[in-house]
Amino acid sequence: MGTIKAALLGFGTVGQGVYEAVRSHRQQLKARLGAEVEIVAVLIKNPYKKRDVGRSVLVTTDFEEILAIPGLEVVFEAIVGEEPGFSYCMKAIEKGCHVITANKVMFAKYGEILLEHAKAHGVYVGYEATTAGGVPVIRTIAHQLQVNDIQRVQAILNGTSNFILTEMREKHLPFEEALAIAQQHGYAEADPGNDIEGKDAFCKLMILSRLVFGGQPDWKEVEVEGINALTLADVEKAEKKGLRYKHIADVYRYGDTLKASVKPVLVPPEHALYAIEGVNNAVTIYGSLIGKITLAGPGAGKFPTASAMIEDLAGGYRRIPQMNAI
Amino acid sequence: MGTIKAALLGFGTVGQGVYEAVRSHRQQLKARLGAEVEIVAVLIKNPYKKRDVGRSVLVTTDFEEILAIPGLEVVFEAIVGEEPGFSYCMKAIEKGCHVITANKVMFAKYGEILLEHAKAHGVYVGYEATTAGGVPVIRTIAHQLQVNDIQRVQAILNGTSNFILTEMREKHLPFEEALAIAQQHGYAEADPGNDIEGKDAFCKLMILSRLVFGGQPDWKEVEVEGINALTLADVEKAEKKGLRYKHIADVYRYGDTLKASVKPVLVPPEHALYAIEGVNNAVTIYGSLIGKITLAGPGAGKFPTASAMIEDLAGGYRRIPQMNAI
Repeated sequence: MGTIKAALLGFGTVGQGVYEAVRSHRQQLKARLGAEVEIVAVLIKNPYKKRDVGRSVLVTTDFEEILAIPGLEVVFEAIVGEEPGFSYCMKAIEKGCHVITANKVMFAKYGEILLEHAKAHGVYVGYEATTAGGVPVIRTIAHQLQVNDIQRVQAILNGTSNFILTEMREKHLPFEEALAIAQQHGYAEADPGNDIEGKDAFCKLMILSRLVFGGQPDWKEVEVEGINALTLADVEKAEKKGLRYKHIADVYRYGDTLKASVKPVLVPPEHALYAIEGVNNAVTIYGSLIGKITLAGPGAGKFPTASAMIEDLAGGYRRIPQMNAI
Repeated sequence: MGTIKAALLGFGTVGQGVYEAVRSHRQQLKARLGAEVEIVAVLIKNPYKKRDVGRSVLVTTDFEEILAIPGLEVVFEAIVGEEPGFSYCMKAIEKGCHVITANKVMFAKYGEILLEHAKAHGVYVGYEATTAGGVPVIRTIAHQLQVNDIQRVQAILNGTSNFILTEMREKHLPFEEALAIAQQHGYAEADPGNDIEGKDAFCKLMILSRLVFGGQPDWKEVEVEGINALTLADVEKAEKKGLRYKHIADVYRYGDTLKASVKPVLVPPEHALYAIEGVNNAVTIYGSLIGKITLAGPGAGKFPTASAMIEDLAGGYRRIPQMNAI
């Protein structure tokens, strides 16, 4: 029984979560994978910041150093943005490493290329952590809904936006104050643009679209609207009518094309996403046999996202010989 | 590319759903399994009832006739009750058939034996359809949550009870009238005892317990209470306080033992099961890394249950060579 050597690209909240979770769940990983998982290297940006990692761990700003590690098998990519994440993932695949990514901006654009590249090199690319945080929507759709024709996916994919809308309604706060609370809680970035303008949810929706429908709608045709135009008055008016604004990402088949939108939608209590509150995410899937099912849970956060990455490794790693055989 | 020969035990609502779904999703099954699935035989109880099946399908009351079919590969078991379901499944396994069951009463008691027997004979036993109807909770827990330590499962597992509670609250109906509506809709049996007394939810909870914790609590120690003692006054009193009665099946680790209960519980709006309405089921899983996730959807019905059985075949069939290798 050997050791599975893994490297971590990025050591922000998610990267640190993976590092800690691999250590705290060492026994469970060993039981599942038949080998211990060891994080042997961490790629960082700022070499002057102190990192809380074991002495034997290589901490470097140079990705080539990581690629050169003999016997490296797994790369966890937890960098933000298209580049250098994409190039690093491509190189890791070429080196024969399995790649587990949480990078939604990169994967929305380059997912197809990465998956093709991985197939050609006989390795696994897991992207569960890109979408809906800890909720295992990607692999549930991929493995548990293989026969159903999926007609539509409707989802709450940005925890920050959902948290802000919940705060506005429950505490009668104006948008700016609710946003400030989200930032205090660490949900929203200092620059919350991607969250509140709908770009983050858009990327996740495009990832779901490729998985469910085998393609994406023309990005320019997708209506993307954030929650930043909603006022407290809007939210209160809706509440009086028994409705709620939810920031909903929606993609469905329309004849031979795909239609998608990401925007605030007024929903009634019987809507599956009405009761999804706070930083939770939820994905509703409409299938030809199953009807409508909804998966909900924490849409972000250190350990939920780490959970998605580690479960992805445990589930995917095993499946590789089978994947290649198909 | 050959044909996968399958037999159907039982031709009630679920059995008919599987029969129709296999036909309507022929292409999807072929794409996933590399072979067409054909229902070649149906086991019935009443030989005088007309059955809407193809001419080439063997319709029989004699299980031995089905077992004797050359090259039979899959048995869908959709009979109600411990026997003869259990004996039939054991014999099918011995004959080398994969078994996909929807029989919760049987599987709650004999699941462990069936799974062991299947392992010994190199076949797959799928039981997704026993629990939470179409919602893929069994395989999500089995395959998507392999690293997380699951500490607790709380669930709404009986659609009829949940429907009755929803009707009572929304329409201010007494229990008996809500039950009558459930029966008119075909949700509750003529003898609704198993549903409203909590026995159905108990069986499903025991199935989840074995899966999640590798065992079941002592059945005699589990508090099982149905919704039949709840009055409209109880429901209305709760509503005034902003609470709802939900019939909750709950199992969790307590030291070295397992504790479980199945009973009406008052829950506040922030509870994950508060908003689960009508005939829906939902399962909330508490994991060490993931936090709390909830899977919700139709808890019963012809096509949701058929969906669970067919997806189980598609997912499990592929996995068999790998399962045996482990």
